[in-house]
Amino acid sequence: MAEEDKVDDASSPNLAEEFDEIAETPNQVGLSDDSIREITDALHEPENDNHVALIEELSNADTADLLQKISEDDRKELLEKNDTEIDPQTFAYMDSDLCKSTLSAMSASQVAQIISELDSDDALDLIENLDEDFQQDIIKQLSAKTRIAIEEGLTFPEDSAGRLMQREFVAIPEFWTVGKAIDYLRAAANDLPSEFHDLIIIDPLYHVVGEIPLNRILRSKRSTRVKELALDELHTVPADMDQEEVALIFRRESLNSAPVVDNDNRLIGVITFDDILDVIDEEAEEDILKLAGVEGDDLYRAILSTTGNRFRWLFLNLLTAIAASVVISFFDATIEQIVALAVLMPIVASMGGNAGTQALTVAVRALATKELSSTNMLRVISKETLVGTFNGIGFAIIMGVIAALWFDNQTLGLVIAAAMIINLCFAGFFGAAIPIFLDKIGSDPALSSTVLLTTVTDIVGFFAFLGLASIFLI
Amino acid sequence: MAEEDKVDDASSPNLAEEFDEIAETPNQVGLSDDSIREITDALHEPENDNHVALIEELSNADTADLLQKISEDDRKELLEKNDTEIDPQTFAYMDSDLCKSTLSAMSASQVAQIISELDSDDALDLIENLDEDFQQDIIKQLSAKTRIAIEEGLTFPEDSAGRLMQREFVAIPEFWTVGKAIDYLRAAANDLPSEFHDLIIIDPLYHVVGEIPLNRILRSKRSTRVKELALDELHTVPADMDQEEVALIFRRESLNSAPVVDNDNRLIGVITFDDILDVIDEEAEEDILKLAGVEGDDLYRAILSTTGNRFRWLFLNLLTAIAASVVISFFDATIEQIVALAVLMPIVASMGGNAGTQALTVAVRALATKELSSTNMLRVISKETLVGTFNGIGFAIIMGVIAALWFDNQTLGLVIAAAMIINLCFAGFFGAAIPIFLDKIGSDPALSSTVLLTTVTDIVGFFAFLGLASIFLI
Repeated sequence: MAEEDKVDDASSPNLAEEFDEIAETPNQVGLSDDSIREITDALHEPENDNHVALIEELSNADTADLLQKISEDDRKELLEKNDTEIDPQTFAYMDSDLCKSTLSAMSASQVAQIISELDSDDALDLIENLDEDFQQDIIKQLSAKTRIAIEEGLTFPEDSAGRLMQREFVAIPEFWTVGKAIDYLRAAANDLPSEFHDLIIIDPLYHVVGEIPLNRILRSKRSTRVKELALDELHTVPADMDQEEVALIFRRESLNSAPVVDNDNRLIGVITFDDILDVIDEEAEEDILKLAGVEGDDLYRAILSTTGNRFRWLFLNLLTAIAASVVISFFDATIEQIVALAVLMPIVASMGGNAGTQALTVAVRALATKELSSTNMLRVISKETLVGTFNGIGFAIIMGVIAALWFDNQTLGLVIAAAMIINLCFAGFFGAAIPIFLDKIGSDPALSSTVLLTTVTDIVGFFAFLGLASIFLI
Repeated sequence: MAEEDKVDDASSPNLAEEFDEIAETPNQVGLSDDSIREITDALHEPENDNHVALIEELSNADTADLLQKISEDDRKELLEKNDTEIDPQTFAYMDSDLCKSTLSAMSASQVAQIISELDSDDALDLIENLDEDFQQDIIKQLSAKTRIAIEEGLTFPEDSAGRLMQREFVAIPEFWTVGKAIDYLRAAANDLPSEFHDLIIIDPLYHVVGEIPLNRILRSKRSTRVKELALDELHTVPADMDQEEVALIFRRESLNSAPVVDNDNRLIGVITFDDILDVIDEEAEEDILKLAGVEGDDLYRAILSTTGNRFRWLFLNLLTAIAASVVISFFDATIEQIVALAVLMPIVASMGGNAGTQALTVAVRALATKELSSTNMLRVISKETLVGTFNGIGFAIIMGVIAALWFDNQTLGLVIAAAMIINLCFAGFFGAAIPIFLDKIGSDPALSSTVLLTTVTDIVGFFAFLGLASIFLI
């Protein structure tokens, strides 16, 4: 058992000391608000450079944190006063909006300098967000090798495997032995990528024929042929595959890295799990934001750009709300006679909207994770319709009693009860059906589902309630 | 350059053949609906066992997919007819609700059999969802070693690092050389965990003093001391740390694996990136579902249990909606005189709700990723308030004109315009402030933010619109 390895003897005092140091390191994630305050305070002291030492101590992720959280003025001041202390890697950790505005304020040669020190995937990630003219100015200043890598990278579609991959990898021929592979890795140590997790076996035409996790190399005898160590299943990723698909493959197969191939199935790069951690987070974030009508994470975007961004979606919602108002206006004579209807009608619409959103969110997530497809589509829609109807019956009873007592009118109670059942039944059905339908026709189910659903639940809600009222109460 | 390795000569025909095979494997994620249909059709053929061969061909992830997507009856039939063909690993891939109901239908000894073939983290993951009595029955049937591991694992809080970690790891003392480490790995090959990504350096008391990625071992000379190869920063995770925190550390530091330590800082397990892929996805899913009032992914839950689950949140919403109705009822005399108010009032409330949800969603995400904290809290709240107000002004103009024309009443136009600005300003402020406040008091901002926000936007919306109308229009 590996965990039972006895650590022989030789309990050196050094170890105890080192351990003490480690124990003192607090395990807090990210930079604390206190540390940030300390740095901005130091930054504002006119006569000294204490902040330089404080910033030099930070990891790149922490520096990125710091830059993101301080005000725009502080950020400018900090970048100006510390341009040599800030590691280019810091920019790879920053939010893309903020990174764009920060880099756009620099000269092309400064950005080229930063980019040339990053891995090919991080470099591409940084440059792809910049304006095209600026991109060209930067690319001109890069070394031939970096330039070609960046220009080729930009030819792949956005959010594709080609944009995500790094071009640095370790590939070996299948007839090598473990001993030969280790000798090669030792000899080439300085030319290898700084991190790698698998060895890729290729044929003379650069076609991928296998993948070997490093632990299999380490635990095998020198004479073992590398082909015997390859994983049973090979998961090559075409360069134009969407990153969301790639992330699903990584999750399903618990991959550490995957080779990326071009149209001729030749190895051109590698995607590693750390790229995928970001993708999974981004894609889930995209869904959650889209459902609420926010395009992209706009935490760091300027106020006017954020306003414009959100205006579009609110405008769509306004159209929905006006449509619902038109329905209400059909029944203005009824409302004039029984003003209790005006008091109660938002309840029916709002319950429908909320019940529908529950069904819709579950369906949107299940579509994103491919747990929902043609096979179980009808089962999911009928389940959601039933759940909506059952909750409709529950709330019909509660709200029927409340309305009857409140306005001392049993028929009104029956009318709102019936409207509640109808609307929640529709809400369940359309909540599941709208995203499935959007997915079938190739639209993004997260993007417009909510607006369509609210249109349905508002219109059905008002129509059912006011319509039944005009029949039974007048 | 690693990517320029020349693959010497020996272009064997085997390679070309193997390559053809690989090229034929379609790169589709998960099991296609056609394959599922083929298997269920075969399952329903009474006289033969064709389905057995079809299922044996599937990977474990695909089998899990299949079990999830078919109907309950088909699932039962399939499990009965194929209980020996289905690999225990399959259950590790299944949705936890469905897994629970499937395992609960089996005998304790069958489940014990399955659990004893899984890694300790997967085993724990499976057993922790089962009913406690059933858990005890299963644990009794396990081997002493597995039993201790499971019982200890269950003592860690839910969703903590201790539940996530596997107990299988490879630890070496710091005075070893690369050569000694490789010799040990070769000698102990069969006792090592099936996968590992880093070697952990420990002192004689099992305190973690360093971590070495395997590629550093492979590229170094045999005489190199392992302590020279350790990463600069050591990221040990306490066993009781919440999995969301652990995931943030993995993302920030691009970790491949991290050692887990107990209260005395002794090594007790390892968390690997593949556990984290699941956590990131789960946590984002939790947020997205909670915002919509769904507790946990209930795609596979039974209809009545789903109904009950969602009822609670809808009930909270009903209270909100009734509170809004009470506000409306204050103005019933006004509405009786001007029925146009009843027609227009839902627009003001709905626009406020939607604008507020935009701000709220951005804040909830930023809190989850720790991008929002005390340092930038006020900046975010004031930004959102301004964005809300600006959009309020925009929609005030649009809706003011529409209302004035529709009902031929300029004052009505001015009233709805003013109400729109007021409500969207409040929506922006409370959209950002509510989740921040909930986070400060230690509540989950995703869970109840939406209900609180809707209460605010409904009440402010109706109050502003109807209140102004009763002053200026009567």
